[in-house]
Amino acid sequence: MNAHILTIGDEILVGQTVDTNSTHIAKQLNSIGIAVSEIQSIKDEKLHIIDSLEVALKKNDVVIITGGLGPTNDDITKAVLTDYFNDELVINTKVLQRVQDFFVRFNKPFLEVNRYQAMLPKHADIIINDLGTASGMWFTKDSKIVISLPGVPYEMIGLMVKVIDKLRAQFNLGNLYHKTILLQGIGESYLANELEEWEKEIQSKGITVSYLPSIGIVKIRLTGNVNDKVYILNQLNVIEGRYPKQVFGYDDDKLECVIGNMLKLENKTLGTVESCTAGALSSRIVSVAGSSSYFKGAIVSYANEVKRNLVEVDSEELVQFGAVSQQVVEQMAVNGLKKLNVDYCVATSGVAGPDGGSDEKPVGTIWICVATNDAVHSKMFNFGHSRVNNIESTVVYAMNYLRRMMLNLLE
Amino acid sequence: MNAHILTIGDEILVGQTVDTNSTHIAKQLNSIGIAVSEIQSIKDEKLHIIDSLEVALKKNDVVIITGGLGPTNDDITKAVLTDYFNDELVINTKVLQRVQDFFVRFNKPFLEVNRYQAMLPKHADIIINDLGTASGMWFTKDSKIVISLPGVPYEMIGLMVKVIDKLRAQFNLGNLYHKTILLQGIGESYLANELEEWEKEIQSKGITVSYLPSIGIVKIRLTGNVNDKVYILNQLNVIEGRYPKQVFGYDDDKLECVIGNMLKLENKTLGTVESCTAGALSSRIVSVAGSSSYFKGAIVSYANEVKRNLVEVDSEELVQFGAVSQQVVEQMAVNGLKKLNVDYCVATSGVAGPDGGSDEKPVGTIWICVATNDAVHSKMFNFGHSRVNNIESTVVYAMNYLRRMMLNLLE
Repeated sequence: MNAHILTIGDEILVGQTVDTNSTHIAKQLNSIGIAVSEIQSIKDEKLHIIDSLEVALKKNDVVIITGGLGPTNDDITKAVLTDYFNDELVINTKVLQRVQDFFVRFNKPFLEVNRYQAMLPKHADIIINDLGTASGMWFTKDSKIVISLPGVPYEMIGLMVKVIDKLRAQFNLGNLYHKTILLQGIGESYLANELEEWEKEIQSKGITVSYLPSIGIVKIRLTGNVNDKVYILNQLNVIEGRYPKQVFGYDDDKLECVIGNMLKLENKTLGTVESCTAGALSSRIVSVAGSSSYFKGAIVSYANEVKRNLVEVDSEELVQFGAVSQQVVEQMAVNGLKKLNVDYCVATSGVAGPDGGSDEKPVGTIWICVATNDAVHSKMFNFGHSRVNNIESTVVYAMNYLRRMMLNLLE
Repeated sequence: MNAHILTIGDEILVGQTVDTNSTHIAKQLNSIGIAVSEIQSIKDEKLHIIDSLEVALKKNDVVIITGGLGPTNDDITKAVLTDYFNDELVINTKVLQRVQDFFVRFNKPFLEVNRYQAMLPKHADIIINDLGTASGMWFTKDSKIVISLPGVPYEMIGLMVKVIDKLRAQFNLGNLYHKTILLQGIGESYLANELEEWEKEIQSKGITVSYLPSIGIVKIRLTGNVNDKVYILNQLNVIEGRYPKQVFGYDDDKLECVIGNMLKLENKTLGTVESCTAGALSSRIVSVAGSSSYFKGAIVSYANEVKRNLVEVDSEELVQFGAVSQQVVEQMAVNGLKKLNVDYCVATSGVAGPDGGSDEKPVGTIWICVATNDAVHSKMFNFGHSRVNNIESTVVYAMNYLRRMMLNLLE
């Protein structure tokens, strides 16, 4: 079974917004064995919408459309689809009630423009939106399905849960099997080179291998048939055995969750003292729900003055070695243990750029340290990226450095 | 002049990666007056690539392709395009030298797989990649142009600078004019309702109006001809006059930059004391290059213990009013002024969720405070979103709250 994802609205085409909706929908469809053959973004233009819809329906069983359902005048998707399916817009009293309740709940005045949100095609299945005022619509024609969802990401995400359930109930799905292994701290080309023979062997069984690099992380995804599941899992086990320092998880695992689970299991607490990352590490750790059970807090000692006064880094060493040094990052971590009263303290100090680099410490030079009451480990990295990427690299490397320390995997 | 953006690689279609490349390319093309008619993502499949290319070339003057140029075996774009344009791959000695230098510079061994990166089509224009090993390729056929770029975002971004220059040099461009005004703290439907008459008036002049909402922010974009520039700017001036609290900038302005520039002008320093945002506010402020001239640091007092010990929030008030209260958030900001030795201190404390809510303080209840030595202002918000969105809302509202305080625009 194949699907086509169609995004409507010119904000993507003018480069004003990133199309995260299609990513989410693609992931959801793939998870139930519906392959996405194409993702397409087009304007709020009636003819272009209809044209794209016809082409997509020829090649696919399902078309999922997002966008163009808002209350403003540039939103035309509902009218175009109603027309295309020879349907008519009528007031849906159940939805009207929900929309009105929605405004009462948030103590906001109900506007006339919001009433239009309850005008819906008479013959389509309406999918109730629990998080907003634009409903989902499910049209069926000649055994093909067209689903229209709002473009507001969290509303679309809420509706996709219902769409997936409905697709599952209606079709006999699921032949594709994907499994992804996640590695931190090794480059894509090195990995691919080292795994060349392994990759050939796997491909000879009809399984595809994809590499997906992002800042500090490489994902290797194997795709086969559900019958290949055991073989695929065994092959990924081989990788895990070969790269224990790098492999931190599978599929949607995140380093911040992996660390969080380890800390919870050990009943240990964590804090950070950050310079170049300036809270990016702390906020990444806290992005995990329930992190308050192990994360206590952080000190962002961005200025040297704060390193001295609040973290009590030795003034003379700060002058002698500079803020980006092993001596200073180790003091930050060790002092952080006491200041924050935690079992593990991670410290970062580096030259994020674009300014502040020198011959000795070029932009991208970063020190990472993890301290406990028993041990202090630190390491220098040179990422050599842009400011944003140096910060992201530091966050990712620091999390894996902590993971490796907890697992006794530091060399 | 029209363009089509084609992304190759199944990581987008399986939902493993978000297509930020197309957003960047679209923005760049629009900025020089090339309208993007469509963005399309397809698999690493020869026939699908050729088919899409042919359709795209029929309707457009330029096709920009990203992805599929890596050193791994699933990357086929270069071979397919070379074939499609009846070209042949030959070793490009200049590129080979650069690729070899690249590995020397980063002190990494040169692998045979990297040599293939210097095999390039003989008749295409090669666009040198200063940030990686995959070159850009510029093919011309019957006055149509096909440009292939690597999918690694920062490499593509570097190459797009050269592509834009080359397109500008080759064509007489530029009739479209876009201008976007940015508002924080007002919902899309309220704004659209209040601006209904204004919008009609503008549309009657042939200018299109688009609303783009994101967490805490609404952007209004007007698009017309370059001749409409003065009219468009005047119309946006009207909005700025009507919404002084909300309007914080234009086009690509970011709140963190706007605040940073204000602090630099006033020669003032900033710090934060964060609970629910846990460093997200601090790291957002520091994402701006040069922020070290005004940002000193932060305390992330996530646990109450850290609020008491490090921020010295009064223990009794913490028990009496709870961490999410006006009393506590004001103490956090006021004490932060001294602890961090700054002129402005912003504090946040709230229930980010999904747990921790109560009838009195449901998930999404957030206190924001800004303190100086002369004044303390605080306000409660109820965002009622998911964890990630509550944190993002707090960051965005806190930055605008500081901006408004600095401009005497707090009611």
